[in-house]
Amino acid sequence: MELMNARGTKDFPPEEKIVRQKIVDTLRRVFELYGFSPLETPIIERFEVLSAKYAGGAEILKETFKFSDQGERDIGLRYDLTVPLARFVGMNPTLKMPFKRYQIDKVFRDGPVKSGRMREFWQCDVDIVGSTSLLADAQCIQIAQKAFEELELDVNIEINSRKILDGIVRQEGVAEDKILPVILEIDKLKKTGVDEVKKAIEALGVDDDAITKIICMFSTVGSNAEKIKTLRTFVKDKEALDGIKEVEEMLSYLDDKNVVFNPALARGLSYYTGPVFEAFLKDEKIFGSSLAAGGRWDKMIGSFIGSAKEYPAVGISFGMEPIFTVMTKLGKVNTKSKTLTKAYIIPIKTSSECMKIAEEMRKAGVNTDLDISARGISKNLDYANSLGIPYVIFAGEDELKQKKVKLRDMKTGKEEMLSVKDVVKRLK
Amino acid sequence: MELMNARGTKDFPPEEKIVRQKIVDTLRRVFELYGFSPLETPIIERFEVLSAKYAGGAEILKETFKFSDQGERDIGLRYDLTVPLARFVGMNPTLKMPFKRYQIDKVFRDGPVKSGRMREFWQCDVDIVGSTSLLADAQCIQIAQKAFEELELDVNIEINSRKILDGIVRQEGVAEDKILPVILEIDKLKKTGVDEVKKAIEALGVDDDAITKIICMFSTVGSNAEKIKTLRTFVKDKEALDGIKEVEEMLSYLDDKNVVFNPALARGLSYYTGPVFEAFLKDEKIFGSSLAAGGRWDKMIGSFIGSAKEYPAVGISFGMEPIFTVMTKLGKVNTKSKTLTKAYIIPIKTSSECMKIAEEMRKAGVNTDLDISARGISKNLDYANSLGIPYVIFAGEDELKQKKVKLRDMKTGKEEMLSVKDVVKRLK
Repeated sequence: MELMNARGTKDFPPEEKIVRQKIVDTLRRVFELYGFSPLETPIIERFEVLSAKYAGGAEILKETFKFSDQGERDIGLRYDLTVPLARFVGMNPTLKMPFKRYQIDKVFRDGPVKSGRMREFWQCDVDIVGSTSLLADAQCIQIAQKAFEELELDVNIEINSRKILDGIVRQEGVAEDKILPVILEIDKLKKTGVDEVKKAIEALGVDDDAITKIICMFSTVGSNAEKIKTLRTFVKDKEALDGIKEVEEMLSYLDDKNVVFNPALARGLSYYTGPVFEAFLKDEKIFGSSLAAGGRWDKMIGSFIGSAKEYPAVGISFGMEPIFTVMTKLGKVNTKSKTLTKAYIIPIKTSSECMKIAEEMRKAGVNTDLDISARGISKNLDYANSLGIPYVIFAGEDELKQKKVKLRDMKTGKEEMLSVKDVVKRLK
Repeated sequence: MELMNARGTKDFPPEEKIVRQKIVDTLRRVFELYGFSPLETPIIERFEVLSAKYAGGAEILKETFKFSDQGERDIGLRYDLTVPLARFVGMNPTLKMPFKRYQIDKVFRDGPVKSGRMREFWQCDVDIVGSTSLLADAQCIQIAQKAFEELELDVNIEINSRKILDGIVRQEGVAEDKILPVILEIDKLKKTGVDEVKKAIEALGVDDDAITKIICMFSTVGSNAEKIKTLRTFVKDKEALDGIKEVEEMLSYLDDKNVVFNPALARGLSYYTGPVFEAFLKDEKIFGSSLAAGGRWDKMIGSFIGSAKEYPAVGISFGMEPIFTVMTKLGKVNTKSKTLTKAYIIPIKTSSECMKIAEEMRKAGVNTDLDISARGISKNLDYANSLGIPYVIFAGEDELKQKKVKLRDMKTGKEEMLSVKDVVKRLK
């Protein structure tokens, strides 16, 4: 047998998992601060649900792990947390609206494995179902502001409304079946630049004059208010004007210090119906991919569960992998500590006594470990050092006679004789 | 499309997930107090790993979800957290020993769905790899003591050594190939009673005299010390005597207030090699199944990774489902609260102002939600009530003029005019 992971999966050893748990804990705390409740849906879903018309679409379905249970039922692994949410809402008609849930969980995609793309990865989603109010959209942006503040990442949150994109492109006379392709090209403005985007839109058969106007409108600069003002002078299309109003209203609810109106922001076009948002590290040279993204998706749940009633929804999803990557790059996390243990006791012929000391410290809330291998002092120091444990406690007969132990700070090497109570005080 | 869960899976709505998260948080805190570090292994494993000879065995393999990826590789869903741990240890030869890890995660078994058995469920495992010391075994028992103390569940932790069972049955002349079947029957003493067990051992062809002696030894009563004393007068077999010594040594390390030596305790026989332990609610009439169980498994990892070197290991696994069931039965948890929100703000024509108040409260660490639907007061009170939010805040123009809000205690109905600062003080 070869000892290896399945393709596209990996282990997270303690030094990484500790950091990941901290990120998850932070997001969870922020989500709960904003009134979201945890929901757990299963990893296995019926294939019929995963492949429903209004679910993820053909692209994602190709990447869905499909198999069957002992009863020959077709099942699969969820590829996102949105389809299960739609199913849950459909199965629970008495749910009080707005239903605000978060789910931090794994999803699975059997896609090509390259450049760090995994087949099993985490998504951290918050969604508000059952409200058309833009206060809900604003709340999603606030959550992103608060989460990145807590994670100490300096981000810009770009916002837009899909309606602005749709309306402007339509206003300039682009044929209905070309609107989406044009928008997809506009979305690339930041990445590939004006020339490339122009060429691509030309190739779609849009006339030169329209292209110039479109590109101009989507390249407005200045403050959020200035951009809105500029757009208003050009925009006549009713849908686009609605979109501008949406952006204005959202901004009015927000402390917009790091909120940037970007009329070219399109996001995954499939099911967004109004506002969209995406968070990027301010210094995009360090990391250019999005760290969180979301938007309003008013149509999906109703269509999915086959209801005449609409289930308006808006949410944002945080990317565990990019956040972890950025925090590591910026040195914001210590991926060297292999343990959360604060103190490691090295007993010197006094195991039972040391177990009692360890228990006393744990009772006081200090993560404490002790040598159980009866190793020598230097081997024990090596062990504590390699795990990154900050303090070592020596408890020999001499120390215990004085009702004290010797506390060693592993960083400075400084040693002190202290009572267990004082050790606890020092370490808390 | 039918809206339903895959067979053997279910959703955990907020009112259940909140309780489950509390249980997980408690276990995690206790595991970390005792010096264990988190490890995350993937849900998908290569089928070759899952089906390795020394892994779960034929019974579990029958229940393993098996499928293939786009590259036609055989893969499956893990059925426990032990095999992945063995693989991880094998793949990381530089791991410092003892390696103390915990993993709280989902496992999958495609078995018959009955009496609450799910196909996707949680396991909460701690294991110490790389130490033969009985201090490690004692630590697992301490963790169980601490965890159930924190969960406020009054349990007995039964302990034994597999060596006692093996040795005594062998000593009484039972044929080698009958030892395991006899032990399996002895394990049922508590459940089915002496008569049934006698009959079953008779049916295995063991002679009457031996049966009487065996049953007598495994039915010793009294304190732990008395049981050990009684056994010592009967036991001659060297292995059994070793087992008794193991139990004695473990007891010497423990505050044995709720540790009960039960020589008949066998546990999953497949890979345990020495001490075994199992936690039960003291009042078994309320709940008779085990809440946590574990033991020493010194042979598995070495055999699994094909190493001549032995990897001694001992661990304990907590059952999420039984713990949740017991806590609900005993009324220890509130499964009625659908949210962790402390306060719900009802704006009266002052949305923007209320968003600022909500932000102020969140900044101070109070989970706060606010109406975004512009509903009337009574609908809003219904909403807060149905979610189980303990406090409602009214913020109308009158209140805001006085720089105050009205705080309503939803339990008592009492209302007070307070500054936001005082509200925060009250709710923290």
